[in-house]
Amino acid sequence: MANIAFIGLGNMGGPMASNLLKSGHQVAVFDLFPEAVAKLVSEGASTADKVSECVKDAEFIVSMLPAGKHVEGLYIGDDGLINYIKPGSLVIDSSTIDKGTVIKVSTELANKDINFVDAPVSGGVGGAQAGTLSFMVGGNVADFNLAKPILENMGKNIFHAGSHGAGQVAKVCNNMLLAVLMSGTAEALQLGMDNGLDAEVLSDIMLQSSGRNWTLEVYNPCPGVMENVPSSNDYNGGFMTNLMAKDLGLAMDTAVQSQSSTPMGALARNLFALHAGQGNGSKDFSSIIKMFKKT
Amino acid sequence: MANIAFIGLGNMGGPMASNLLKSGHQVAVFDLFPEAVAKLVSEGASTADKVSECVKDAEFIVSMLPAGKHVEGLYIGDDGLINYIKPGSLVIDSSTIDKGTVIKVSTELANKDINFVDAPVSGGVGGAQAGTLSFMVGGNVADFNLAKPILENMGKNIFHAGSHGAGQVAKVCNNMLLAVLMSGTAEALQLGMDNGLDAEVLSDIMLQSSGRNWTLEVYNPCPGVMENVPSSNDYNGGFMTNLMAKDLGLAMDTAVQSQSSTPMGALARNLFALHAGQGNGSKDFSSIIKMFKKT
Amino acid sequence: MANIAFIGLGNMGGPMASNLLKSGHQVAVFDLFPEAVAKLVSEGASTADKVSECVKDAEFIVSMLPAGKHVEGLYIGDDGLINYIKPGSLVIDSSTIDKGTVIKVSTELANKDINFVDAPVSGGVGGAQAGTLSFMVGGNVADFNLAKPILENMGKNIFHAGSHGAGQVAKVCNNMLLAVLMSGTAEALQLGMDNGLDAEVLSDIMLQSSGRNWTLEVYNPCPGVMENVPSSNDYNGGFMTNLMAKDLGLAMDTAVQSQSSTPMGALARNLFALHAGQGNGSKDFSSIIKMFKKT
Amino acid sequence: MANIAFIGLGNMGGPMASNLLKSGHQVAVFDLFPEAVAKLVSEGASTADKVSECVKDAEFIVSMLPAGKHVEGLYIGDDGLINYIKPGSLVIDSSTIDKGTVIKVSTELANKDINFVDAPVSGGVGGAQAGTLSFMVGGNVADFNLAKPILENMGKNIFHAGSHGAGQVAKVCNNMLLAVLMSGTAEALQLGMDNGLDAEVLSDIMLQSSGRNWTLEVYNPCPGVMENVPSSNDYNGGFMTNLMAKDLGLAMDTAVQSQSSTPMGALARNLFALHAGQGNGSKDFSSIIKMFKKT
Repeated sequence: MANIAFIGLGNMGGPMASNLLKSGHQVAVFDLFPEAVAKLVSEGASTADKVSECVKDAEFIVSMLPAGKHVEGLYIGDDGLINYIKPGSLVIDSSTIDKGTVIKVSTELANKDINFVDAPVSGGVGGAQAGTLSFMVGGNVADFNLAKPILENMGKNIFHAGSHGAGQVAKVCNNMLLAVLMSGTAEALQLGMDNGLDAEVLSDIMLQSSGRNWTLEVYNPCPGVMENVPSSNDYNGGFMTNLMAKDLGLAMDTAVQSQSSTPMGALARNLFALHAGQGNGSKDFSSIIKMFKKT
Repeated sequence: MANIAFIGLGNMGGPMASNLLKSGHQVAVFDLFPEAVAKLVSEGASTADKVSECVKDAEFIVSMLPAGKHVEGLYIGDDGLINYIKPGSLVIDSSTIDKGTVIKVSTELANKDINFVDAPVSGGVGGAQAGTLSFMVGGNVADFNLAKPILENMGKNIFHAGSHGAGQVAKVCNNMLLAVLMSGTAEALQLGMDNGLDAEVLSDIMLQSSGRNWTLEVYNPCPGVMENVPSSNDYNGGFMTNLMAKDLGLAMDTAVQSQSSTPMGALARNLFALHAGQGNGSKDFSSIIKMFKKT
Repeated sequence: MANIAFIGLGNMGGPMASNLLKSGHQVAVFDLFPEAVAKLVSEGASTADKVSECVKDAEFIVSMLPAGKHVEGLYIGDDGLINYIKPGSLVIDSSTIDKGTVIKVSTELANKDINFVDAPVSGGVGGAQAGTLSFMVGGNVADFNLAKPILENMGKNIFHAGSHGAGQVAKVCNNMLLAVLMSGTAEALQLGMDNGLDAEVLSDIMLQSSGRNWTLEVYNPCPGVMENVPSSNDYNGGFMTNLMAKDLGLAMDTAVQSQSSTPMGALARNLFALHAGQGNGSKDFSSIIKMFKKT
Repeated sequence: MANIAFIGLGNMGGPMASNLLKSGHQVAVFDLFPEAVAKLVSEGASTADKVSECVKDAEFIVSMLPAGKHVEGLYIGDDGLINYIKPGSLVIDSSTIDKGTVIKVSTELANKDINFVDAPVSGGVGGAQAGTLSFMVGGNVADFNLAKPILENMGKNIFHAGSHGAGQVAKVCNNMLLAVLMSGTAEALQLGMDNGLDAEVLSDIMLQSSGRNWTLEVYNPCPGVMENVPSSNDYNGGFMTNLMAKDLGLAMDTAVQSQSSTPMGALARNLFALHAGQGNGSKDFSSIIKMFKKT
């Protein structure tokens, strides 16, 4: 069993840290919200007043933070953990951030002999609780192999995407594609309904034809076609439009940096931004089908 | 066994008629190309000098023609088959055409007590030969039930999409969605590669994540990732960009008629038209990934 | 002064016929609405019970109808005017319709020695009343020269766009571009406002820079920047979103027919369709800026 | 006459500094390329070994650098000019950079009582040489009024866009709109040509109609329609596709930051990136019309 520090105990990080505890690891936790810390402590975690205190004995440091600036500030800021983490330790950052920050942070940590993998997740809060997340990992093979057993305590599919930053790239590519699948599926279903077809019949036909995709399989955007999906719960729960819009923003940054052309992804980004701007930011992203429905 | 007339023996119609013969039906065939007719006759079909002669004893008339104007001209033109087909017979039109023509033709035929279903297919030439096509059928339930056993001799999945024209609508919705899936997948893969990821690794990750779709499953657009797909054969064979562009044109017509908004499908239509216009019209439609690759 | 028949006395056709009367021509009018006819008769026009009666002495026949099917039905239907118009006469069709119908109708009329130009207009109801319309004319030079003095009684700019159908093509190209200008200008202004800029200041800067375009010059979509434009009248009056959507539908048809790629125009078509579908169809098309404003 | 330091003597900065000298100012120049410095010195400028030396007596510091990181590094880096510029001086940064960097740099400078305006330009190398640039200025009114007479020595239109960063926002809004105008105009012209219209005739019609915009007025993308524009010089000279793509990247960043939806601008960004990726990055941006022309 390993000695792990876990930083960032939000909707995702909290249950992830819980699963590490359940697997028998020694976990020192830190978060700015005392309630979040208290919950984990009640489950057996230790904590400390300062984050620097939490990491000083850790072999693994796992972080789950909102944005690149937080990751940069935590590790390499003036009073960054770079000055406290033991050489030879492995930082596993599961935040969804830009590749540029990954390269900057991992390079500086390497100068102090601290190892790093980026390991963003997919699977949502449900996956975090159930321990069925997917991890897309960027870093060298040795570090990936070291991280893998730890990640398997929190997730089901652990992918090695490539070198530093590749985990982030894989995640933005996947989520950009997901946005394309969802908006494309939504407008195809609505086009069919506008022309007299039944949503369930058309869904079934496309699911068994070349239009088949993840959204038709497990996340149909039309209310009533599937049970236990956000569309059948007034688009509550699931993956918020605002979060999809955030990931699409990262995808656009990535494409601008590499001077890539992603017209479909860019249009999807703007459709989800439009949908969020019309007041649907906190609804599940499958609610985009409502945009295509004529009033 | 039924008495069937089959009109239109092209790349699709020829093997479809063959499969009807193999199932033991009596088939009278017609096409403007004598070679196409001769091949089917050698397999046991009958024929006649005039198409009107072919249909006079038929219980079922199957047609497979290039465009709506041909279907309209064949059935309800001045010397149309409407004057020769026996009342009570069933016309099964498998051409991919616009819903408006379906309504016009089926309505006029109904006046002479001739039944009609639209039954466009997906599955390509390979599916036509193997008898594994999917049929999307529009028409009333009784006619669908009558058509089904005949269609099962040529295909595997027989869907009842709804009333007259619904088969065509289902097909354009599915193919519009397929175009979205392919162009979206292509640009996501290229974005990953532009940022250092391996196409096969990224394909594998997205296939097991929420980016999963038919193109990643069976039709990967990156050369070398899958065997026996067009991308691994220099984009030869498969579904030509020009044919995808034609289907997307029908989807745009459908959307304009119903005043529907299909931004993703419309962009895909224009990307495939651009790709065709740059000289790739006769290449498989998965070759669109080449458009996103920087020179 | 000429002997003119005028068919179609709607919002546009009525004032156009009025202007011909004011110029001193003899005008025989026809419309299905008796009130529309009565108004023109009170201004000096003649009429008849049947449209065929109205055209029998005419040297010029001007028509202004809603769609291609009406034009086709009027001139070449079973009881079409083709059987009544004097050989050597000139038909000036000002309806906005598809090029295909223009070619079909003009070709059939030519067989009876009846000349034809397509002459769609821009300038709206205001332009029709003021006699300041623009006409985009398709047809041969001789017919254009014959039509020009008549058109000058109803408009200000008379363009010879090319052969039959070219007037329609010019109009859909212009209106597709206008839709692009308006949606692009709207989102640029909203982006500026979202980042703290004043709409009037930004409008002024772009008007004097390379972003200058017709919408910034005379039709600013932001309320309060200009007087006497629809945006300063709650988007009433002006050019209805539904009509722009109709013209964009024709543009899409044109692009599909010629297999042209028009990604910007296609996206504009879908944005205006979306805007209409959200209940803004009868508002001026500049109201699209409301779509980009976050709630 | 003022004491001015000018930093960054590239294609734009060089001629701008020249024009300040011609207006009679004392100008101390700095650049990493000795040749660029030597040219200005031969025209009367002074220089120094270190950039910190150049600015110590300056009332105005003008900078023209490639990207935000250069501006940040110059002014507020460890050895930044913030430590050398006299309190009360005014920094005029004419680089095209992101609003975030403007806010960061101007805020830090303000702490040392150094004033700042962002003043990006449009008008290109030709405008820099002729002294006819447009400046879009962000900052407070007093600083704008102070900067204005200096800027008038280098440009013709000096706009006050708003507070710090507003100059940058105005520029990206304008250039995003320009990209929309150019791509929209290009595809409208090509659609017309694909349907038999002459580019010059259609340009003329749209120029006098509601499709009128800056590109049709002074920068027609069709070869031969206008003299002395890049399209009539094989798309050499002018505004490179790569530079337009860079500005569109900044526009996308801006839109992502403010969560704005700019579908037309985003599509234009991706079309220009596609065009650059197909080998046209160093051609004028009006060459995008070649993308729409079928081979």
